[in-house]
Amino acid sequence: MEARLGGQSCLSGVRILDLTQFEAGPSCTEALAWLGAEVVKVENPKSGDPGRSLGGKPGVDDPYFLLFNANKKSVTVNLKDPKGLQLVKDLAKQADVFVENFAPGSIERLGLGPDVVRALNPSIVYCQVKGFGEGSPYENNLAFDMIAQACGGTMSITGERDGRPLKPGPSLGDTGTGMLLAISILGALYRRKETGQGDHLQVAMQDAMLHYIRIAFATQHRTGKASGRAADSSVSGANPPMGTFPCKGGGLNDYVYVFTSRTNPEHWRRLLAVIGREDLIGDARYDSPAARAERADEVNAMIATWTRRHTKHEAMEIIGAAGIPAGAVLDTMELSTDPTFEARGIMPTIEHPVVGRFKMVAWPVRHSGSPPPVAPAPLLGADTDDVLAHWLDLQPDAVGSLRAAGVVG
Amino acid sequence: MEARLGGQSCLSGVRILDLTQFEAGPSCTEALAWLGAEVVKVENPKSGDPGRSLGGKPGVDDPYFLLFNANKKSVTVNLKDPKGLQLVKDLAKQADVFVENFAPGSIERLGLGPDVVRALNPSIVYCQVKGFGEGSPYENNLAFDMIAQACGGTMSITGERDGRPLKPGPSLGDTGTGMLLAISILGALYRRKETGQGDHLQVAMQDAMLHYIRIAFATQHRTGKASGRAADSSVSGANPPMGTFPCKGGGLNDYVYVFTSRTNPEHWRRLLAVIGREDLIGDARYDSPAARAERADEVNAMIATWTRRHTKHEAMEIIGAAGIPAGAVLDTMELSTDPTFEARGIMPTIEHPVVGRFKMVAWPVRHSGSPPPVAPAPLLGADTDDVLAHWLDLQPDAVGSLRAAGVVG
Repeated sequence: MEARLGGQSCLSGVRILDLTQFEAGPSCTEALAWLGAEVVKVENPKSGDPGRSLGGKPGVDDPYFLLFNANKKSVTVNLKDPKGLQLVKDLAKQADVFVENFAPGSIERLGLGPDVVRALNPSIVYCQVKGFGEGSPYENNLAFDMIAQACGGTMSITGERDGRPLKPGPSLGDTGTGMLLAISILGALYRRKETGQGDHLQVAMQDAMLHYIRIAFATQHRTGKASGRAADSSVSGANPPMGTFPCKGGGLNDYVYVFTSRTNPEHWRRLLAVIGREDLIGDARYDSPAARAERADEVNAMIATWTRRHTKHEAMEIIGAAGIPAGAVLDTMELSTDPTFEARGIMPTIEHPVVGRFKMVAWPVRHSGSPPPVAPAPLLGADTDDVLAHWLDLQPDAVGSLRAAGVVG
Repeated sequence: MEARLGGQSCLSGVRILDLTQFEAGPSCTEALAWLGAEVVKVENPKSGDPGRSLGGKPGVDDPYFLLFNANKKSVTVNLKDPKGLQLVKDLAKQADVFVENFAPGSIERLGLGPDVVRALNPSIVYCQVKGFGEGSPYENNLAFDMIAQACGGTMSITGERDGRPLKPGPSLGDTGTGMLLAISILGALYRRKETGQGDHLQVAMQDAMLHYIRIAFATQHRTGKASGRAADSSVSGANPPMGTFPCKGGGLNDYVYVFTSRTNPEHWRRLLAVIGREDLIGDARYDSPAARAERADEVNAMIATWTRRHTKHEAMEIIGAAGIPAGAVLDTMELSTDPTFEARGIMPTIEHPVVGRFKMVAWPVRHSGSPPPVAPAPLLGADTDDVLAHWLDLQPDAVGSLRAAGVVG
């Protein structure tokens, strides 16, 4: 499990006790696992993280689970049994970090709230993800990704300009929150290495969304009004030509994004050369951003006439090579079958003991040339014996007794 | 500047040499600054980070700049002058981390590429953000947030189901990428503290997008087809009633999100009680997710009839209190004028020396009760003398000579 590319893995020796499920928590602990931390998922022996069962195939972990739990270990413990609870407390004494994302009040009812665990292990970094922050009128409310995105402003800026609010496709409420918590955990671990000081980290999914829509707050600062929706442009405003232009094929994703910057007049001039309208270079009707904004429809139509004659890949290649920012709108199938992602280690194919060959999405930051290595998500309870032996020095017969009594899975 | 809430700030003593601009890089280094690192922005003396000028008001930093550069220091150096370049090399020798997000090839042309800087300081963590990854056919292309979102799949899953692809409002291509790099930097710093080992981190904005759309890859794994668009639902599929429901007022954002989970049948039953249709509790026509999916339009209309009679805030309060995940669609103005965000330290009002009172968006993770303290983004060159004195032991007269020669601002 230790990632050794480019020397010792970053978080070698860091122990994380992971009581999270679904995505906001698991995406956070998975990032730490990729960097080499030993992440031990504590799961109920019956079915484990509900993310395992989303596909509805008994005994087969869903792709959702596989994507958010790579490089982790799984220990199954019955938390309703006092001996199981004690076992988790014993594990918490050995851990550097404790993470949970249960519904509000649940971890306290389980008997593993921050006061309890921090008393057992004062230098632990104790972490909680909730939907709404302590002190919010909604602090006890349930939340899922879409609720966080509704209440966190991301939906209000997504959609056609005059259409209804839409949910951004990315699961920003979950993974977006998980990443911010991972940063704070790593900050707290860095200080702890020197001072031994623990911490109590809390993040609310609603609050985390504000971090990702700061361009919309900037726009509001400028205009004095709530930011509108981005449509195919940006909440910061459009600088025509800019947006998704239709391409040959006419399919749902046969579009190329073309962007001409307000701060670089060459983008527009280069684009005119690409579409064979050199005659308009320097023409005052189009030569400034303000002039083009006045003739936005005409300008965009000019570009669309050209893009319709090309596939999105051709269009991206030709426009990009001319020094103008351009990008084909790619769908998940195009991305996962593009061999350059596999070759670069960004989407490696791994072997899972039950599912078989599985296309993963790896940690995308390369460390000295490569993304950290990927190990498949653990089967339910795969590491119970191993972790109890190494963290708690429990011998096989002791674990056997606990298993016979239904305390561990 | 040192954040002292809850003890010593996390990254106290960490020195970051920051050659980034706009958002992907600055969002990353700002996260580190919030956690207490000393982040020194190196800017050109003339106009600095182009993010400062986005508002077009000379001498007044744009809100965009203020939001992405809090808690940092600014040093102005003319990199085109050999003495200025040498100064930055000297600073790099004193730094723990070096970060840049120039266009492909630019940092090497400046003479500060990874080979140069890592030779000067082998234990430095040298970091680069680009649009496309090394080894991608587009590795030399320009990219901005929207290009990364087009090529990284997020647009293909955002929009109405049969509509054109739209850009998610959040600037995921920029800030989303910045957060992943921050995690890797912190991992590398953690290892470095023990081993002294440096690292070379590289992240491509296109690659980073895959990390945020893993639910779409999970859906594709299940169906064998490219993931569709989320509309107001989720790419993982809908479980009616689910989505944005229209509320009293009829404005662009007068909607409430209601979510009933497939795995918790109580959500539906509680919702029937809320809308006064207890008569339908247990009715086989609606009692299972499959049954409701068959009558999706009817089920959604039933909820909409109720939500139209309530404001989004009432609807959220009533439905949420009944134990059903619900959230009003809030816009940026509603969020920034909600006093609970100010009270909780999530959106504090700070004082900027030129702009005056300014509503910030703080780091949303609370450390032992509070988000880290916020200091305003630095004025251009505000810390040149201070940093040259402390990092390089340059005396005021030496700095004065450099300034007179146009080497520093």
